[in-house]
Formats: sequence, structure tokens, C-alpha cells
Amino acid sequence: MKKIINDPNLVVQDMLEGFVYAHPNEVKVLPNTTVVVRKDAPVSNKVGLVSGGGSGHEPAHAGYVGAGMLDAAVAGEVFTSPTPDQVFEAIKAVDGGAGVLLIIKNYTGDVMNFEMAAELAEAEGINVQQVIVNDDVAVEDSSFTTGRRGIAGTVFVHKIAGAKASQGASLEEVKAVAEKTIANVRSIGMALTPCIVPAAGEPSFELNENEMEIGIGIHGEPGIERKAIATADEIATELTEKILDDMNLSSGEEVAVMINGLGSTPEMELYVVNKKVHEILKDKGINVYDTFVGEFMTSLEMAGCSVTLLKVDDELKELLDAESKAPAFRK
Amino acid sequence: MKKIINDPNLVVQDMLEGFVYAHPNEVKVLPNTTVVVRKDAPVSNKVGLVSGGGSGHEPAHAGYVGAGMLDAAVAGEVFTSPTPDQVFEAIKAVDGGAGVLLIIKNYTGDVMNFEMAAELAEAEGINVQQVIVNDDVAVEDSSFTTGRRGIAGTVFVHKIAGAKASQGASLEEVKAVAEKTIANVRSIGMALTPCIVPAAGEPSFELNENEMEIGIGIHGEPGIERKAIATADEIATELTEKILDDMNLSSGEEVAVMINGLGSTPEMELYVVNKKVHEILKDKGINVYDTFVGEFMTSLEMAGCSVTLLKVDDELKELLDAESKAPAFRK
Repeated sequence: MKKIINDPNLVVQDMLEGFVYAHPNEVKVLPNTTVVVRKDAPVSNKVGLVSGGGSGHEPAHAGYVGAGMLDAAVAGEVFTSPTPDQVFEAIKAVDGGAGVLLIIKNYTGDVMNFEMAAELAEAEGINVQQVIVNDDVAVEDSSFTTGRRGIAGTVFVHKIAGAKASQGASLEEVKAVAEKTIANVRSIGMALTPCIVPAAGEPSFELNENEMEIGIGIHGEPGIERKAIATADEIATELTEKILDDMNLSSGEEVAVMINGLGSTPEMELYVVNKKVHEILKDKGINVYDTFVGEFMTSLEMAGCSVTLLKVDDELKELLDAESKAPAFRK
Repeated sequence: MKKIINDPNLVVQDMLEGFVYAHPNEVKVLPNTTVVVRKDAPVSNKVGLVSGGGSGHEPAHAGYVGAGMLDAAVAGEVFTSPTPDQVFEAIKAVDGGAGVLLIIKNYTGDVMNFEMAAELAEAEGINVQQVIVNDDVAVEDSSFTTGRRGIAGTVFVHKIAGAKASQGASLEEVKAVAEKTIANVRSIGMALTPCIVPAAGEPSFELNENEMEIGIGIHGEPGIERKAIATADEIATELTEKILDDMNLSSGEEVAVMINGLGSTPEMELYVVNKKVHEILKDKGINVYDTFVGEFMTSLEMAGCSVTLLKVDDELKELLDAESKAPAFRK
């Protein structure tokens, strides 16, 4: 295992300390937790937004904490859901009196633990609502998940709900636009290599030297098919077609595109994929409103990428364009 | 070789097309070149800034093209200097009448080809000046380089010279602040794994499973020492001490810190390194003005990182903080 770490059991804490050192004016870690919150939390009369999940997906989720996006991100151990008490601490810290929305990626552990936290918070009189992101069109019901998994499309939910909350919208309004975003966003990923969880010390699965896997999850959950590595154009085509099959996009409609690197894929390759995705959309008369290429929802050092399409209307476009001060998503 | 590409010989062109698709309002590629320029180039009466070099270091250099940073980036083949005629095209495209500054990383090929381009431009009456970045304290005179190599510190030169040019400063003033930045910036890197140039198909060097190399270059040029992988704290300490030995920083002085991933190092690990770098600086009474953690000057999918320290005064702080619309360095 080649990693730049200290004690594998302290890697999340070390990371969070390093994160606060890098962004001391924007964020803080709540004492004795792995909860990163906006330094000015709670913001009075603004709906608080909480997300999080297992670590190892950086910049998700702490990188999306900041004015215009999340108020708090709860970090679990690597690829492990945060505990309810940690999520509860986050909720309490960001409740400014207008309620709190939880943005949960659809994994059984996350859903269960965030829901338990919501119950704890409601017992203390905090108004908590939640949305569950399930943008991955690859498979229904895989390891750790009932239904579809939540992956990179979650970042668009953070951005759009965050912008709506910043405008002073009510909890119901913020939840509604988050649900609209979830209804409009689809993703799928592929991998060339596995990754190694530090505390495990070895890869959780293997891929042969000439193999790739289409539809793999961000924790290495099984995908649709393993096969010989194809060209970038073929990969981009397969991913995009699988999304479009699920989406009912018509010529003349608009999308935002995210080409997300899973960890060790050079930006060069992500832009090669982006070229083909744009060509496909152009051929179909679908207009691209904005494009995001980079690492947004990673899987440690896994090689591979995901493609996300978000169908946008005037409301979503305005919210996507709104200012964000989050370290990993400046707008 | 596991890569998401099409023809290895077309990877730079594919990438640049994908880059323009992602940022169509900000940049364009000059026809029949690998030169990325600001879409509104040339900007009248503003000093034009041109940088570039071999590809494979993304987001360098095209990611730094935009208002407040570079006017053009010239992309060579992977790890190969761009030709003089390409650099010449860039110079002509960004000359708005106030002259052009070339920001060159210190590699023999780059220096030679950018200088030849400058001569061609001067023959056409364009006022061209240049600065050479040599921030890597690891070694003097290595493969491809006489003197010290230019690495991640180059990004600070782009940012600061870009801000100065945006203020309407003269070519001499922009050059002076670029040289001041170069005098104040030091970096050093380390690697855990090599990378594979697409057209070569195999790694240019090997590292054993338990080995790392300190002081390696961004093309895999030899470093100072190969040894067993150390902890993140030990690595951060060794890199930071080597920089500080060369820098004469006193207690009470201020720096900007960059922790740069070389390609496949998870952001988690970069933040772990950042923690220790900050602790060391704190112990020495050196204040950190700002911190940048991420991938700024990569080496394809090499695993490893570099540390950069920039000593800042009021002038450099103001220029570092100034607005930038470059896709890979939003401020």
C-alpha cells in the first residue's frame, strides 16, 4: 500500500485538521467530532444544509461547506457512514431557526444514521427534513444500497439547494428544489483500477490489466459489466447513452455536464471524455448550459470517471450560477 | 497501460477540444495550433502573459488562462516542449500593444523554444520579455535542465503577474513582480509511483513497492534520494525543512502554502501533509497567509506531492488575493 499517511486509523482526523488549516476563515471542526461547519454557523433564519458520508470521496463533502452551499459536512471513517450522534451534532450546530435539510446519498447506512439523527434533533424541537440522492443509473440494489446509489450528482444537489437556502427560502422550498434537482440528475461511472482503504491495506476488488468495469460504485460496488478497456470515445458513448436512456431529454433542452475523476485519472483524460460527451449531446440537439470537469466525488485513488447530466430550467440555471464560497466549488 | 484515451498521438488535441467545450465563454484554441487563449484576446493596452510547456501537467497550463491570470497557454506534446512557432502564435494573439511577458519553467527545451519565439516576435515589432521559474530546491542540473527546475511554484507566478497585468501595469512592472515572486518561491516534490506517457506506453522509471523518491521532477527526473516510504509527517517534515534551508524565513514573516498533488494522490493525503506543514511553520513562528491544496501542477497519474512556500509581503498578498477567472484558479 503506497499512501502518504500516518496512522491509518487517524487519517480522517489528520485530514480534517489539515482541511481547517487550509481554510481557517471559512470552516471549523466542531470539538471532539468529525463535523466540518461554516465558521459563521448557525446563520440566523437561513435553512441549514447538512450532508456527509464516508470519507475517501474528497473533496466531498467538506469541500462543499461554505456560503452558498453546505453548512456542515459529517465525515465518517473511510467508506463508512458517520454515526447518528455526529450527524446530530451537525444539525444542532447549523440550525439558525429556519430548520435543517439533510442531503443524503442513497446508501443503507447513511440513510439509517441520518434518519436517526433527524429523530434526535426533532425530539429537541429542530425542524428537520431530508432528501435522498440516487443519481446512479448503473444498477438497482447493490452492496450497501437498496435502490439506486447516490454519486457525483449529489454535488449539484448541494449547489442548488445551497443557493436556494442562501436566498432565504423556507425549508419546504429548499427541499422542493433539492427534490427537483434529484429528479433531473443522472450519473454513471466506470473504473480501470480499484483503490485501497488505508485501514484495510489491500484492494477490495481486482481488475485485470486489460479490464475496465462499467457502472461501478464509488466504493467499488459491482457494476454492469467487466470487459476489455475501450477507447475514451467508446467509454464516453456508453456512459452517456446509458444516462440518456433513463432521462427522456428532448432536442432543444438544456443540461449541465459533470465529468468527474474518481481519483487517479489525469485531468487530460477527463477532458478527452468531455469532448465526446459534448459531441454526443450536440448531435442530439441537447444544449450544454455549463460544464464541470475535475474531481468532485472521488473514490480514493481509483482510476476511472463518471459522467453526470443535470437537466436544467431557468430556476436551476439561476441557482447553479449563484455565488458559492465553498473551497471545492467556487462560483 | 490503463488510460481513458483514443489515439495516444491525438491525446493533446482531444484534450484541448474537450477543454474548450468545457469553458466556451472563457477560452478558445487558435486554429491549427495547440494554443489556448482568452476568448477576448488581445486585451487592449494590457500586458499579455504567455506560459505553457509539455502537456501532462494539467490543470497547467490551460487551466490558468483567464481574466486575472494568463492570456495564453501553449501546449506541447506530453512532457515535450512546445515548438517556437506555436509560442510565436500565442505571442501574436495576446499582444494588445503593451507587450508580452513569457513565463517559462526552467527546462532546456522550453527556454530555448520560448526564446526563439520571442526573437521571432521582436522581429515583428512586438515587445517581449521573459522570466524563468526555477523554484525546485531538490537538485541543480538534472535531465532536461541546467540549474533548478520549474515546478508548482510557477502557478503563483502566473497568479501574481496576471493580477499585476490586470491592474494595467507596464511590461517592466509586470516582469519585476514576476521576478520578485520567483525570488520568493521554493518547492520540492516526492513520488510514490511513476507515470506512463501515453505514446510511450510504459513507465519511464520504476519504484519498488516500499520505495519513495524525494526531490523527483515532474517528468520523473531523478531526485535526491530513494528510500523506504515514510509517514506523512516525516515526508512533510523533510520537504518543508529542505525548502526552509534554502529560504531564510524569519519568525513573524508570512508565506502562502501550496500542497500540490502530482496526479493520483487522494486529496485526503494532501490535507494530511498540509496539517504537518502548518504545524512546522507554526512552531517556527512563520504565519500562513493563504493555503492551496489540490492538483495544480501534475505529472499525469504519478502518485506523490510537492510542497511550495511563497514568502509574501503586502504587494504579493494583494496580487494573490485579486480576482481570477481562470478555470483552475478561481479567486
